[in-house]
Amino acid sequence: MAPRILICGTIVWADEDVKQLLGPIAEVIYYDSPNRAEFLEGFKPSGKYDGVVGIFRDNSSAESIGFFDKEIVDGFSSSVKWIAHNGAGYDQIDVHACKAKGITLSNTPGAVDDASATTALYLLISTVRQYAISERSLRDVKWKPKGLAAKSHDLTGRTLAILGLGGIGLRLAELAHAFPMRIIYHSRNKVAHAPEWCEYFASVEDMLAEADVLSVHVPLRADTVGLVGEKWIRLLKKGSIIINTARGKVIDEEAMIRALEDGHLASVGLDVFPNEPEVNPRLLDFPNITLLPHMGTETQDTQRKMEVRALTNLKDFVTVGRGKDVVIEMQ
Amino acid sequence: MAPRILICGTIVWADEDVKQLLGPIAEVIYYDSPNRAEFLEGFKPSGKYDGVVGIFRDNSSAESIGFFDKEIVDGFSSSVKWIAHNGAGYDQIDVHACKAKGITLSNTPGAVDDASATTALYLLISTVRQYAISERSLRDVKWKPKGLAAKSHDLTGRTLAILGLGGIGLRLAELAHAFPMRIIYHSRNKVAHAPEWCEYFASVEDMLAEADVLSVHVPLRADTVGLVGEKWIRLLKKGSIIINTARGKVIDEEAMIRALEDGHLASVGLDVFPNEPEVNPRLLDFPNITLLPHMGTETQDTQRKMEVRALTNLKDFVTVGRGKDVVIEMQ
Repeated sequence: MAPRILICGTIVWADEDVKQLLGPIAEVIYYDSPNRAEFLEGFKPSGKYDGVVGIFRDNSSAESIGFFDKEIVDGFSSSVKWIAHNGAGYDQIDVHACKAKGITLSNTPGAVDDASATTALYLLISTVRQYAISERSLRDVKWKPKGLAAKSHDLTGRTLAILGLGGIGLRLAELAHAFPMRIIYHSRNKVAHAPEWCEYFASVEDMLAEADVLSVHVPLRADTVGLVGEKWIRLLKKGSIIINTARGKVIDEEAMIRALEDGHLASVGLDVFPNEPEVNPRLLDFPNITLLPHMGTETQDTQRKMEVRALTNLKDFVTVGRGKDVVIEMQ
Repeated sequence: MAPRILICGTIVWADEDVKQLLGPIAEVIYYDSPNRAEFLEGFKPSGKYDGVVGIFRDNSSAESIGFFDKEIVDGFSSSVKWIAHNGAGYDQIDVHACKAKGITLSNTPGAVDDASATTALYLLISTVRQYAISERSLRDVKWKPKGLAAKSHDLTGRTLAILGLGGIGLRLAELAHAFPMRIIYHSRNKVAHAPEWCEYFASVEDMLAEADVLSVHVPLRADTVGLVGEKWIRLLKKGSIIINTARGKVIDEEAMIRALEDGHLASVGLDVFPNEPEVNPRLLDFPNITLLPHMGTETQDTQRKMEVRALTNLKDFVTVGRGKDVVIEMQ
C-alpha cells in the first residue's frame, strides 16, 4: 500500500508538481475539515487521515483548524513522521511537541530568500527616500510635499545593519552591496560563508551604534519576542530607520512607536505586524513610514518555488527516509 | 575687477561651497527679480546684472522668470559666456539661442545618476511586486488584496530593457544586475564602456519584444517628444511594465493610458509627467500603478553634489576658461 501524504493547506501553483513528485510514490489526500475537532477526528483509527505518514502544511490551514499547536500535534496518528511546512517561518508549529512525538519538521528556507530580501530592499528605499508620503501626496493631488530632500538621503554610502545573517539577510546584503551601502551584521556566530565586505560585529550594541538602517532577519522564537526593544532602539543613532520583514513580535511595538513619536526613529518600513492581519491603528498616524500587508513572498514565482520545495522534502522523506530543510531545533 | 557670477536659482545645500569655490575668484550676486521683465531689465547697461559673465541656474527660478527661452537668453548682456545649469535635464533652456549668442551651457550629469536610478529601481520593484495597491489597502485597514501573487513576479530572471544607456540608465543596469535581471538596451550607438552583461540591441523593435519591463532614460528634445508611442508600446509583450524617470513628454500619455485600460500594460511606474506639477487625473483611476511627484534627485546628498558640480563648472570657467559637463549639442 502506498504511503499516505496529507495536503493540509492549499497548493496554488504546483498542482502538476504534486502529481509528478508524489503521484508515483504516494497516495495523496487533501484535508477538507472545516474545523479543529473534525480535523482531529480524522486521525483516530479508521478516520479519513489515519495512516498518514507525511503532511504538507501551510498557513492557510490555520483559518479552519488553527496553528499546529500541541493539541493538534498530539492528536496526530503515530504514523505521522514528517511535516513539510510551506514557508520560512514556522512559528505556527509547536516544534517541541513535534520533537516529543518523533515527528521531523522541515521548512522552505532558500526558496523565500530572493522575494523577501527584495521586499526589505523596497522598504529600505521607500523609507530612506520618503516615498510613501510622496506617493500619497501625489494621489491626494497635492504633488510634492515641501522640504523632503532635507529628510531624504542616498542609500549609497550609508550603513545597513543586518540582525541575523541567514538566507534572507545575506540576500539583502547582496542587493544593498550593489549601491554599495556599507554592510554590517550581528549573528550569534560569525557567518563563515559571508562575503568579506560584510563586517561582523560580535557585539550587537556596537553594531547598533554604527547603523543608519537596521534590518531585522531573526526568526520568531520564545527568546526573540521583543528582542528589538527600548534599549536596542535607543542605541541606534537619532534619525535611524528600522526595517522588519521577519516577524512583528520580534520588535517591541510600543517602544518602536514611542521612538517614532519623539523623533528618535526617522522612519520604519514594516511588512509584518504582531497580530496580523490586525495593524495597530497608531501606526497609521505616521505619514512618513511604509507599511506593507506581509507581501514578503507574494509572487507566483516564489510561491511555486516554495510549494515545490516542501513537496520535494516529502518526496525525499518517502523515498530515502529523510528530506532536506530540517528546522534548526532538530538538526 | 573680479568677474561677476549670478546665482539665478536657489543654493540650498552648498552655501559654504559657494564661498570656497567662487569667493576668492568672483563677485557673487544673487538674483532677486520677482518677474521676467525686471530680470531682463537687470541686464541692460548699468542694470544690476550688467557685466555678469557666468550664471548658476536651477529650475526654481522658473517660478518667477520662466524658462531660459529665447527671449531671456537674447536679453542677456553680451558679457554672459557660461550658464551652469543645476540638473541633468536642461529642457527648460533654449540651447540653440545660447549657441547663437556664444554662451556655453553645462549641466550636472553624473551627480544625478545614483539617486535617479534608485528611483527607477524603486518603481521597478513597486510595479513588478504590486506594492502601491498593497500599501493603500493596508492604510485603508483592509490588509492584503486577494490574488496579488497571480499578478506579481520576482525581479530575478526577468528582462529589463533600458532605452538610452547614459549615466542613469547604466547605473540602473548595475543595480538591477544584482538580482540579476537580464539587462538589454537600445541606444543610437553601442556603448563602449557598458559591461558585457548589458546586451545591445541595434533595433529598438527587437528590444521591445524581449522586455518584461521597459525603463526610459532619454532626454527630452524635439525628436524625443512622444518617442514611446502607440507603436512601441504595442511591440511590448502583453503584461509588460513601463518605468519613466526621464521626462513625461517622452511617452505619449494617451497611448500609455489606452494600454493600461485594455490590459496590454500590467502597470507603469512614473516619476515624471508631461505638465508637472499637473498630473492627468485619469492616471489616478489606476490603483495598480505607482506615481511619484518627481522625486528622482530629492535627497540632500545628491542635491548638494549637483550644486557643487554646477558651481565647480563656473569656477573652472572663470579660472581656466572652460568648465566640464558641456551639453552634448555643444560638444
